[in-house]
Amino acid sequence: MRIAELSRRSGVAVPTIKYYLREGLLPPGELTSPNQASYDEHHLNRLRLTRAMIDLAQVPVARVRAVLEALDSDTLSLHERIGVVHRAITPSRQLTAGDSARTAAAVQVQELIQRRGWAVEPDSPAIATLVETISVLRSLGQDHLVDLLDPYAEAVERFTELEVAAVASRTDPDQVAESVVIGTILGENLLASLRLLAQENISSRRLK
Amino acid sequence: MRIAELSRRSGVAVPTIKYYLREGLLPPGELTSPNQASYDEHHLNRLRLTRAMIDLAQVPVARVRAVLEALDSDTLSLHERIGVVHRAITPSRQLTAGDSARTAAAVQVQELIQRRGWAVEPDSPAIATLVETISVLRSLGQDHLVDLLDPYAEAVERFTELEVAAVASRTDPDQVAESVVIGTILGENLLASLRLLAQENISSRRLK
Repeated sequence: MRIAELSRRSGVAVPTIKYYLREGLLPPGELTSPNQASYDEHHLNRLRLTRAMIDLAQVPVARVRAVLEALDSDTLSLHERIGVVHRAITPSRQLTAGDSARTAAAVQVQELIQRRGWAVEPDSPAIATLVETISVLRSLGQDHLVDLLDPYAEAVERFTELEVAAVASRTDPDQVAESVVIGTILGENLLASLRLLAQENISSRRLK
Repeated sequence: MRIAELSRRSGVAVPTIKYYLREGLLPPGELTSPNQASYDEHHLNRLRLTRAMIDLAQVPVARVRAVLEALDSDTLSLHERIGVVHRAITPSRQLTAGDSARTAAAVQVQELIQRRGWAVEPDSPAIATLVETISVLRSLGQDHLVDLLDPYAEAVERFTELEVAAVASRTDPDQVAESVVIGTILGENLLASLRLLAQENISSRRLK
């Protein structure tokens, strides 16, 4: 297809596509004349993935390029591909060494991971976010909210297999990666909204 | 206590406390001399709540004042108080009338609410977010992620009673409201991080 059709099908404006081509986020099309190139489904999927990372997850262009290079390596398993995308879209936080509240929270998170038997890398950015959040909750005197950690973990375990299966069911590797970006970010919106509605329901029944 | 101790115990700087007093977010202390006022536990709780709304939930000052005025009304039940705080910290979205994707998503959300038997107000901001998110997911061709709506709803139902009980266990009404703000926002962080770790675990076991 020509660039105009690529633009129509992806919803990405032609000048933006040209910018992605210049930045190396999109491989060049096949030249059909000195001034015209042809693009295929791979370009379309790659464009959608790039768009999801930049628009939805607000990943900087340089980082998007690094993710795409990693995805293009033939040696990565599907698990490793998902990990690369996860890490790219999860902001990592720097922990302040020596802070005793954080040390205690870090121990608590490690114990939780062991208790649930989760196979996760020790440098997962989600671990840092968890430790940071627990420390802040305790410093705000909200220890009763930290007690919800296990019920939360138990609840997320109930849908995770379905989430991973939904993402892994895509055939094109770029579609898998796109689905991880969209599912991570918009799935959070779905969960947060449903949580508020479920809270409103219980509050309405118990506290009216 | 004097303003210096109020500052120390709340972690809020004295000039900020004076700003809140001028803006009417904090009731004046009891004058003990023409230039000195005394503050009590109510001021401390109110200050913590104000801080949580402004810092954590980024609620504009004018809106914080409206929330505090509503909380000070004697006629509100605990359920209504929680609702006032929920609405203040949840950004509402304007829906574009006549958009067929949104109409279909709205029907789907209404069916979900009926299916689960949730007693929620039709104008809850979380409903608008849910409708918006489903529309976006469909427009991105991610219908397989929309299929996760029911598993998500089922999962959040498992901890909601605990969340509402944790919040309602606080004795001071301002502490309840503070806990709602912090629990809503930081609870989302906890859930999101645990979800990523649980996904990493399943991905590691199934797709490595």
